[in-house]
Amino acid sequence: MKGGAAGGGYAQVVPMDEINLHFTGDFHAITSANNLLAALIDNHIQQGNELNIDTRNITWKRCVDMNDRALRNIVIGLGAKTDGFVREDHFIITVASEIMAILCLATDMADLKERLGNIIIGYNIQGAPVYAKELNAVGSMAALLKDAIKPNLVQTLEHSPAFIHGGPFANIAHGCNSVTATKAALKMADYVITEAGFGADLGAEKFLDIKCRVAGLKPSAVVLVATIRALKYNGGVAKDNLNTPNLEALKAGSANLLKHIENIKKYGLPVVVAINAFVHDSKEEVEYLENLCKEQGVEISMSEVWAKGGEGAIDLANKLIDIIDKDEAKFAPIYDVNSSIKEKIETIAREIYGANAVNYIGTVNTKIKKLEEMGLDKMPICMAKTQYSLSDDPKKLGAPKDIDISIRDIYVNNGAGFIVALTGDIMTMPGLPKKPAAFNIDVNDDGVITGLF
Amino acid sequence: MKGGAAGGGYAQVVPMDEINLHFTGDFHAITSANNLLAALIDNHIQQGNELNIDTRNITWKRCVDMNDRALRNIVIGLGAKTDGFVREDHFIITVASEIMAILCLATDMADLKERLGNIIIGYNIQGAPVYAKELNAVGSMAALLKDAIKPNLVQTLEHSPAFIHGGPFANIAHGCNSVTATKAALKMADYVITEAGFGADLGAEKFLDIKCRVAGLKPSAVVLVATIRALKYNGGVAKDNLNTPNLEALKAGSANLLKHIENIKKYGLPVVVAINAFVHDSKEEVEYLENLCKEQGVEISMSEVWAKGGEGAIDLANKLIDIIDKDEAKFAPIYDVNSSIKEKIETIAREIYGANAVNYIGTVNTKIKKLEEMGLDKMPICMAKTQYSLSDDPKKLGAPKDIDISIRDIYVNNGAGFIVALTGDIMTMPGLPKKPAAFNIDVNDDGVITGLF
Amino acid sequence: MKGGAAGGGYAQVVPMDEINLHFTGDFHAITSANNLLAALIDNHIQQGNELNIDTRNITWKRCVDMNDRALRNIVIGLGAKTDGFVREDHFIITVASEIMAILCLATDMADLKERLGNIIIGYNIQGAPVYAKELNAVGSMAALLKDAIKPNLVQTLEHSPAFIHGGPFANIAHGCNSVTATKAALKMADYVITEAGFGADLGAEKFLDIKCRVAGLKPSAVVLVATIRALKYNGGVAKDNLNTPNLEALKAGSANLLKHIENIKKYGLPVVVAINAFVHDSKEEVEYLENLCKEQGVEISMSEVWAKGGEGAIDLANKLIDIIDKDEAKFAPIYDVNSSIKEKIETIAREIYGANAVNYIGTVNTKIKKLEEMGLDKMPICMAKTQYSLSDDPKKLGAPKDIDISIRDIYVNNGAGFIVALTGDIMTMPGLPKKPAAFNIDVNDDGVITGLF
Amino acid sequence: MKGGAAGGGYAQVVPMDEINLHFTGDFHAITSANNLLAALIDNHIQQGNELNIDTRNITWKRCVDMNDRALRNIVIGLGAKTDGFVREDHFIITVASEIMAILCLATDMADLKERLGNIIIGYNIQGAPVYAKELNAVGSMAALLKDAIKPNLVQTLEHSPAFIHGGPFANIAHGCNSVTATKAALKMADYVITEAGFGADLGAEKFLDIKCRVAGLKPSAVVLVATIRALKYNGGVAKDNLNTPNLEALKAGSANLLKHIENIKKYGLPVVVAINAFVHDSKEEVEYLENLCKEQGVEISMSEVWAKGGEGAIDLANKLIDIIDKDEAKFAPIYDVNSSIKEKIETIAREIYGANAVNYIGTVNTKIKKLEEMGLDKMPICMAKTQYSLSDDPKKLGAPKDIDISIRDIYVNNGAGFIVALTGDIMTMPGLPKKPAAFNIDVNDDGVITGLF
Repeated sequence: MKGGAAGGGYAQVVPMDEINLHFTGDFHAITSANNLLAALIDNHIQQGNELNIDTRNITWKRCVDMNDRALRNIVIGLGAKTDGFVREDHFIITVASEIMAILCLATDMADLKERLGNIIIGYNIQGAPVYAKELNAVGSMAALLKDAIKPNLVQTLEHSPAFIHGGPFANIAHGCNSVTATKAALKMADYVITEAGFGADLGAEKFLDIKCRVAGLKPSAVVLVATIRALKYNGGVAKDNLNTPNLEALKAGSANLLKHIENIKKYGLPVVVAINAFVHDSKEEVEYLENLCKEQGVEISMSEVWAKGGEGAIDLANKLIDIIDKDEAKFAPIYDVNSSIKEKIETIAREIYGANAVNYIGTVNTKIKKLEEMGLDKMPICMAKTQYSLSDDPKKLGAPKDIDISIRDIYVNNGAGFIVALTGDIMTMPGLPKKPAAFNIDVNDDGVITGLF
Repeated sequence: MKGGAAGGGYAQVVPMDEINLHFTGDFHAITSANNLLAALIDNHIQQGNELNIDTRNITWKRCVDMNDRALRNIVIGLGAKTDGFVREDHFIITVASEIMAILCLATDMADLKERLGNIIIGYNIQGAPVYAKELNAVGSMAALLKDAIKPNLVQTLEHSPAFIHGGPFANIAHGCNSVTATKAALKMADYVITEAGFGADLGAEKFLDIKCRVAGLKPSAVVLVATIRALKYNGGVAKDNLNTPNLEALKAGSANLLKHIENIKKYGLPVVVAINAFVHDSKEEVEYLENLCKEQGVEISMSEVWAKGGEGAIDLANKLIDIIDKDEAKFAPIYDVNSSIKEKIETIAREIYGANAVNYIGTVNTKIKKLEEMGLDKMPICMAKTQYSLSDDPKKLGAPKDIDISIRDIYVNNGAGFIVALTGDIMTMPGLPKKPAAFNIDVNDDGVITGLF
Repeated sequence: MKGGAAGGGYAQVVPMDEINLHFTGDFHAITSANNLLAALIDNHIQQGNELNIDTRNITWKRCVDMNDRALRNIVIGLGAKTDGFVREDHFIITVASEIMAILCLATDMADLKERLGNIIIGYNIQGAPVYAKELNAVGSMAALLKDAIKPNLVQTLEHSPAFIHGGPFANIAHGCNSVTATKAALKMADYVITEAGFGADLGAEKFLDIKCRVAGLKPSAVVLVATIRALKYNGGVAKDNLNTPNLEALKAGSANLLKHIENIKKYGLPVVVAINAFVHDSKEEVEYLENLCKEQGVEISMSEVWAKGGEGAIDLANKLIDIIDKDEAKFAPIYDVNSSIKEKIETIAREIYGANAVNYIGTVNTKIKKLEEMGLDKMPICMAKTQYSLSDDPKKLGAPKDIDISIRDIYVNNGAGFIVALTGDIMTMPGLPKKPAAFNIDVNDDGVITGLF
Repeated sequence: MKGGAAGGGYAQVVPMDEINLHFTGDFHAITSANNLLAALIDNHIQQGNELNIDTRNITWKRCVDMNDRALRNIVIGLGAKTDGFVREDHFIITVASEIMAILCLATDMADLKERLGNIIIGYNIQGAPVYAKELNAVGSMAALLKDAIKPNLVQTLEHSPAFIHGGPFANIAHGCNSVTATKAALKMADYVITEAGFGADLGAEKFLDIKCRVAGLKPSAVVLVATIRALKYNGGVAKDNLNTPNLEALKAGSANLLKHIENIKKYGLPVVVAINAFVHDSKEEVEYLENLCKEQGVEISMSEVWAKGGEGAIDLANKLIDIIDKDEAKFAPIYDVNSSIKEKIETIAREIYGANAVNYIGTVNTKIKKLEEMGLDKMPICMAKTQYSLSDDPKKLGAPKDIDISIRDIYVNNGAGFIVALTGDIMTMPGLPKKPAAFNIDVNDDGVITGLF
């Protein structure tokens, strides 16, 4: 770990502390809009429930921009008759809110409002979907988002422009920044690089299958980022020992890198591997990777941006431009959006995760059938999966074989326009560790912050 | 109603829509800091509960900047062992958060941090208070508040400077803007006017007994604002009929005005009555009020700022300056902060509300005894009371006689430095009405908002 | 304490252990009937809620024959859609169930069924009462109670017949055994004595104002039972010191006895005081009480039934028969059942408890108004009050002066035919102490029980 | 359906209505003992929690003898500090209580008490099991059960003796009557027949693998009971059409009968098939079954006990006696109790249910590992499975092929001495249907009950 969400070393965007705290308030606006809708739902029920909303079947959840496991499963509306109807509810983290996804996928204010209105907040007693627009909630949510929808332009330490806009985590959401930011960048620059993090099985898959599909984007090439440390970890080395050269572990862990290279190629895209250099990387390790990529017919470049800034990536940039100039990209998503929900899930599981089979746990089969009956199945799939493994089990490292993927829950984000499938034990509300990062953060009497990472 | 929180007509601060939405994000920062502390509490318990916090006795509540009755009383931590300990919790509205009060009373970052650390989040199994500083929560909360602590300078439509900073509602909190804003203004201007709304029994009482006491402020005079409409309402006229001249009702309702005049005098302060003029005010009604004030030896002025801007208040301003020039203020709070909790509450109830007696409901007596035992009783009292009546019953208009005040709950805001006493049915989390204001709000495709009030 | 619910020493009914455990199963039958109704309510809601029952306003509670504080306030219906609607519920102890009261007041099976049908289980969304008969619950509840309705005949150690039938505790319910048992006894015996325990302010008041009124019983005389120990306790002596003679304390505590004598006289009934003798009673103490009663014109007798059985009460019996033979009883309840709810409550509070005033806390006033609007106010009042004091505060001993009674909740038991008013902190579900009685109970390999008291 | 739990027609035990209602109160005693333990757990926690019980990990559940889905998942301990610690809890139906199982497996009072003490009520914060004996709960629970442990002797309509004692349902519990009743019967009669209902895959499997193993019983033969109606239902006929002769459906459905015959033989036991005759059985259908059994080398007999009483089963009895006289039984349970938990589960699934594989859902693997670590794995398995199918899906009729069994939860009943594995959607608390049986039940003014079935 050499940085936070704003990068690290000379590879940073500024102002780092603002970006890591409230920034331009977009997340707050999203949180407010999300919770306004929730308040309007419960108020509607309390005021007579004209829409006959089934309190056992409300899928809209409140959100908070905080890791707060105690809010995962809650009961609300306790107290007197004036305190509302009692029901189960859940808080998710703001980055997992459908409003975050909508903000990132909306092309303009009109599109934003249409998507907000299309949100399915739950079902009525008869089982029919109830939409946010039926609750008169669209205008006020849009008002709260009127500034948040605008891309935020920041700069790197070297004054290159960068957009930071939206932040749906790729493990529990669709993982891409906003379509508006990407399109604005495409109008202004010769080359636009967008990040889609948390593993190419998550970030890249969703960028390519969801965002590019929805926004009509055609990427020219993929930079696949890795570190020797991480590959050794995938080869079975404990976190404490990653600084020790270990060629055997690197060889074992490289199966992970190869699987990601294979995956990117399946989308018809050329790929260049960027290895973020660390001081403890040994010569043998670097050479091993270089040869490995050569065998695959893939370019590789050691990136030293953390230590040297832009200069540290000139080789990478040149290799990338060469690839782009060759113009060999034949991009296509991995699945047909009009195939069945199970076909889509199973295609991702088989092709990208390398799984043998998909298990649908508990009531997931019933929920899929319900989505099909409602005609809400012809959408991309947004897989929620651990970022620590190609499988849905964070302990299975490398490129695990003979794995099954378990789908624990499934629901539609009708406003965002995709179906969310939760795998394994992935949670849409994380918890804090024994020593939360907050313990290190302080601000001195002059307002200078320390310990942000 | 001719305006919202930003004023109305020509008596407005701008940018009104920003001020009414996210503004500079201070409320979001307060909400985040409040809920970070809550998450740290529950995480501490989940991670082993070294401090032995009694989950039956946590007084810190989560908050949201939303009227959301369904969150008044909730149960959190449901689910598996990894989802935390189950306990009752409550959401309050952000303006009622102790962090809002702390932000408004803190003199600088060092003071803010000390106050944050002094927050009592609840009690351990042995009954001893647990402080926020024991949870390692101060630095990170302060970091979230580092910009929120700075006063926000806006301007009126006529470009006069105004600070808008902090917003603890006077019915459920201490009702005053920040000490830092007031002190900054005092350094820059000849005359500083600060608002303390929701009735002089609430706003003025807390401004004088809490904020002035804590910050060492010495006000020169009080402008008591009223409308003929409101006085007729206090005289028993239905809301629909307030436009019809009704001298009898005005006479009856003026008991309310007289009680407020009497109250201000008890603080040793000169008072000028400002009547916000409405077009339906009749000449007889205006004359009646002028005579009434003359009998009381009090200046009165018809204010037309809504219709005319600053020009509409020149008479008022002149009268106010005359009073200030006479320099007759002998300000003293109404109670001795070192008297007992009950003496302080009963002084306010008797002197300001005109009550005969105070009833302490349920466990309030026990809680007062506990505060005394902990030595946390020598603080000002922050009464939470309906703004619709001098009593704790919103239906008792005018200057009700033979009233009792009921104290339903009491707790210390140790960081803010006062004790909160909840009267009647007042709630720290409001609910939405049948037709929430949100129904009227919209934003068009160009981002222009309508319906904010 | 020299015994349990079955008596003690030679003053016992047998089989004591059966009576203290399951006995004839009446309590189990009542519990089952109570919880069957609850299950039918929630099932009705889950199956479509044709009656439009308001889940925020269900007054029927589940019950269990156990001191179990954790069940006082619960949330039910959590889980999936198939697990019902979530709502708040409460368990009460079986003796506080309305079904217990109904069983004790019903004259026969037809009356029982009518009363069961008249139970109000809560209110619909429009605010109208919902009756048990609307839920099709009467026949099955009655079937569960078909044997429980029959009086249980047991015998004392000396083979005198005794009925033990029903057991609504007098602190939280109406405190009398069944009408059927009393009427059966009256048909069979020359003299019938019925117990109405937990202080004459509770047991006698309810026996006379509720049971006698409803069943048309006319008592001939009252035996007021006391102990010197208890009177000294009421005079301020700690429980550990009650064996030491203390005439001053006895004098002080006798105010309690005098108040009870005064109360019984208010019902037009002659009274004889029975003092249960203890070995530590001193001669001076006994003489003091004898003189005190003489001054009041009231007979007194030292009862030694614990030590001697029936022989120990011959004097008491003779005095009682003398009084009965004089036939001076002019029994009338203390209040007119057709007066208002508040008049009835205040009459009891003033005349029996010696209170100055009654406070109606929170929403009690609204609830009383609602009962009046529904025409459900012309019923006797069943006060729920601590048995440890004439007031509603268990710590106020003797005959406390200048007391107020607080009514915390009020509701109708429409099947039983009375209105329940909860005072002070009285609970309809007790909790277990640090060392529950269960810790002492055991059964050996031959099935012989020990430690039942 | 021609009867209830007490039988039907001339094949009935009496008094039927008592047996179907409270009977001798055994279920009430079990319910009371179960809930006493629960109350002692929560009281222990409230009184200081000396044993450090983890409120997130209490496995003991309250119970009620009622189908009440709203109690499946609840939150208890809400309210003030005096109302206990808040936690999740669950009610199960009394027949699923471990105390029911213990009562049925205990050989005498000493064994009962030992088993009660061995109940694991949950785990402490360190993860170690907490036993009922540590809560001082054994004596009082045993006292409540002192009569319930005694077998209840009833008689058939023809005055044959029968024991009815205990009632753990075979779908959610171990499905056998008490060991004491069976042993008492064995001492008194030449032939003892015991019922083990809900399908031989449930009732017989558990009778043979749990009860016989634990009690050292050696059955001589098995009577496998079927009806032509049920076999046609298993062959795909709708419930409404079962009265119509349908040889094809019978042939298809007979796969179910054959599988049960095969299963019994796996235990080394001879089997005779008893077909309960219905008037609509056709001659062809009967003949088909007779031939089918002949092919299997198995005796079959048409039983007419419903219509004719004992006379209707003389043929069956003779065939059974013949089989017993041949003395060919070589009984052995189907699995070795010392094999691993998964081996035992998978043996039952494969051999008895005909399943290919077993899926362990969610945290079941972790729980199995935990049981092994605690050394609590060498016990028989009590499968909880739907009685409507050999599989865990009630819709899969006949003898379904290619099925997987899903284990949703697993826990030890350490007092009973077995491990419970929950399969599919089976619930330990049923819900009521739209028209509960209670709707038909009534009792007239003379106490005569109607509608019990």
